[in-house]
Amino acid sequence: MSKKQLKLGAFLMLPGHHVAAWRYPTVKADYVLNFEFAKQQALLAERGKFDMVFLADGVAAGYRTSAFEQQSTAYFEPFTLLSALAAVTSKIGLVGTVSTTYNEPFNVARKFASLDHISGGRAAWNVVTSHGLEAANNFGFKEEPLHAARYERAKEFVDVAKKLWDSWEDDAIVYDKENAQYLDQTKVHPINHDGKWFYVTGPLNIARPVQGHPVIVQAGSSEAGKELAARTAEVIFTAWQTLDEAKRFYRDVKSRMAKYGRHPEELKIMPGVYPIVGKTIEEAEEKRQKLLDLIPESLGVSRLSQQLGVDLSTYPVDGPLPELPDISEINGIKSRFQLVKDLADREQLTIRQLYQRIAGARGHREIIGTPEQIADQLQEWFEQGAADGFNIMPPTFPDGLKDFVELVIPELQRRGIFRTEYDGSTLREHLGLKRPANQFSKKIVEQKIS
Amino acid sequence: MSKKQLKLGAFLMLPGHHVAAWRYPTVKADYVLNFEFAKQQALLAERGKFDMVFLADGVAAGYRTSAFEQQSTAYFEPFTLLSALAAVTSKIGLVGTVSTTYNEPFNVARKFASLDHISGGRAAWNVVTSHGLEAANNFGFKEEPLHAARYERAKEFVDVAKKLWDSWEDDAIVYDKENAQYLDQTKVHPINHDGKWFYVTGPLNIARPVQGHPVIVQAGSSEAGKELAARTAEVIFTAWQTLDEAKRFYRDVKSRMAKYGRHPEELKIMPGVYPIVGKTIEEAEEKRQKLLDLIPESLGVSRLSQQLGVDLSTYPVDGPLPELPDISEINGIKSRFQLVKDLADREQLTIRQLYQRIAGARGHREIIGTPEQIADQLQEWFEQGAADGFNIMPPTFPDGLKDFVELVIPELQRRGIFRTEYDGSTLREHLGLKRPANQFSKKIVEQKIS
Repeated sequence: MSKKQLKLGAFLMLPGHHVAAWRYPTVKADYVLNFEFAKQQALLAERGKFDMVFLADGVAAGYRTSAFEQQSTAYFEPFTLLSALAAVTSKIGLVGTVSTTYNEPFNVARKFASLDHISGGRAAWNVVTSHGLEAANNFGFKEEPLHAARYERAKEFVDVAKKLWDSWEDDAIVYDKENAQYLDQTKVHPINHDGKWFYVTGPLNIARPVQGHPVIVQAGSSEAGKELAARTAEVIFTAWQTLDEAKRFYRDVKSRMAKYGRHPEELKIMPGVYPIVGKTIEEAEEKRQKLLDLIPESLGVSRLSQQLGVDLSTYPVDGPLPELPDISEINGIKSRFQLVKDLADREQLTIRQLYQRIAGARGHREIIGTPEQIADQLQEWFEQGAADGFNIMPPTFPDGLKDFVELVIPELQRRGIFRTEYDGSTLREHLGLKRPANQFSKKIVEQKIS
Repeated sequence: MSKKQLKLGAFLMLPGHHVAAWRYPTVKADYVLNFEFAKQQALLAERGKFDMVFLADGVAAGYRTSAFEQQSTAYFEPFTLLSALAAVTSKIGLVGTVSTTYNEPFNVARKFASLDHISGGRAAWNVVTSHGLEAANNFGFKEEPLHAARYERAKEFVDVAKKLWDSWEDDAIVYDKENAQYLDQTKVHPINHDGKWFYVTGPLNIARPVQGHPVIVQAGSSEAGKELAARTAEVIFTAWQTLDEAKRFYRDVKSRMAKYGRHPEELKIMPGVYPIVGKTIEEAEEKRQKLLDLIPESLGVSRLSQQLGVDLSTYPVDGPLPELPDISEINGIKSRFQLVKDLADREQLTIRQLYQRIAGARGHREIIGTPEQIADQLQEWFEQGAADGFNIMPPTFPDGLKDFVELVIPELQRRGIFRTEYDGSTLREHLGLKRPANQFSKKIVEQKIS
């Protein structure tokens, strides 16, 4: 029997995950908004047999942050970019981040269904709730919606989307030319949803997605986030620094699934990993230092302040962190706050050391070394029950991704833990996730009744 | 000096504009949701040097109409399809219909900006207000928003979108690696819009579109629609049966533009045309009849009922129309109601004759004959001040579009009124529309003050 295979995502954040990636010598001026460049990166990831490319997203420019002028905030919108990439790739999955707080379920369900049809079954939705006042202010809100309300809305939003995807049974379109019957009306279902947050009658105006539902991805690791993930998510992108905390999270979330009637295999946990690859350890260290040297102090402090929700600009940069507020007062990404705080406590880091540590990986795990050393670290987490795979966050594009594809992936393949060719053609097939049953299908309904 | 050139849109409604197109012998079962097929049609239109492809849209499946099972209602969503087409075409404009009633301006402005960047400046937005209760019920509304409210919201929506596109000046991104200055913050502007319908602070999180703004298209021809078009539209897709009414509309709308400081050339009026092309007139007539014979009576009556907003199913199909309500009571597409009513009055048609007349062209002008005869009719309207160009609505795909590209376009080219090659690369260049100035640019603001 062949070995269990790990899953890999290529996290496309152009021109790189390092905060100063755009200043890197081999990065060109227009990499952020150049479709041809984005396409080359997706094709490179597909050449590496990645399960998927992943696009993060936000709905604010970050104009009010002190580091605005030093950061890239002008980028492609996920649906448009992923659809364009769908047309020029053939196998790789396409994961788009879309907010449930600032969209309507009919529009989102429809666009994902359309992307899934265009791509032949390669769409996935990273469900997020978009924190931050600047985002709220772009959508008619003068105050930011509360964390709890955003999660409650998100839960109902995903339920409505699933109903809409199921509103057309797979065989609803019969195409009977002779009898002028285009579809079987008994297999198209209004959903008549009337909930706390949404009133949507349906049906959707597009056939059921190729995958039944696009793959559902989540990133939040708060208590509410973990519970929603156990109930709903098929992939979790998460951030852990140590094997122990990653294992704890892995066991915690997977053990919550049974009460929702789900098997642990139905959810793939994929921590983010920020790899710096060198042919020797010295070469890798050199790359790392070159990147750190490109971070302006003001940007480093500002980014750290954002992550913690605390203004650090008045504290000595070579001194320790000040006293931090309790996590219950944080209305942002609670898990990220905790992670950065733990890292500072554990290693007794100064503000500068801390911002250098999170500048690239943004709290994700940094792994550095030769292809063998990097493969060792990935394999350890994979085999010890800390991860089903990883979301790879290259420091810069194209170099960082190219290093991973050309140096690390062949090493994982030699060890027999990563595919050398795609077996299937949909993202569900790549991930080993089953195609969901249709909740409105007559057969299913009858089975439930009997 | 070269002759004035007409503009052409290819209205992609797959598998055809004829209501029974899917039953046509050469149309295959999966043409509605087959990306490869849609791509071939866009490439065919590009080979014909069309200015643009156009996608209509609605946000309801039409489930409550009596003809639901006979019609195609499962189709691609415009942003996803146009983005995918952008990746595989290089010159042709990409026009997407998007509702202002059931979307947020930040999301729409952003997606059009992204499509414009992905396509290198080929995006256009057909602004619609989405009538119908079934659409309203998909977005939390138990009743349909009134016509006047929808238009008022549309006007403010487009204003907000333009502010958002202008929130980044063209040269805002300076990319100064040396000084760690990615952008010039003085050239990025929050818009701080606080209006009746929208509160949006901005700025957008994507750079200004390649075209400044995507081209603004409209289709409504009601009084409110004409006024909004004179103020805002750069292209109008409209529907007229006779030369006289088309000329009257053309003069009416263009004469309203001066009070908004606009020149008549800044707006292209492009009526829809449904062409049936034959190598001989007999061949064209035969094609027409073949299509009419495919319309089931119940579908014909149902479509006509929809267009008029009156249930005709209880009246004799070979008798005249019943008394119709006054246009002021119509909360749908007022202009389409008037057009169908006028056609019935003018030609004294029975219900069957009337549904056959509108079944294909849906109220647009049907032209039928040899390539020369069709070119004659297009040229007449173009040269007599009834149209700046046409939105071509092939009865079926691929045949109908192929006939137009291979037979009619060469005839228009021989007459010197249509391009034989693209001159520019953006849609604005194809249409001869200037790139809009940025309302927040310092130079402009200073000029206004002095």
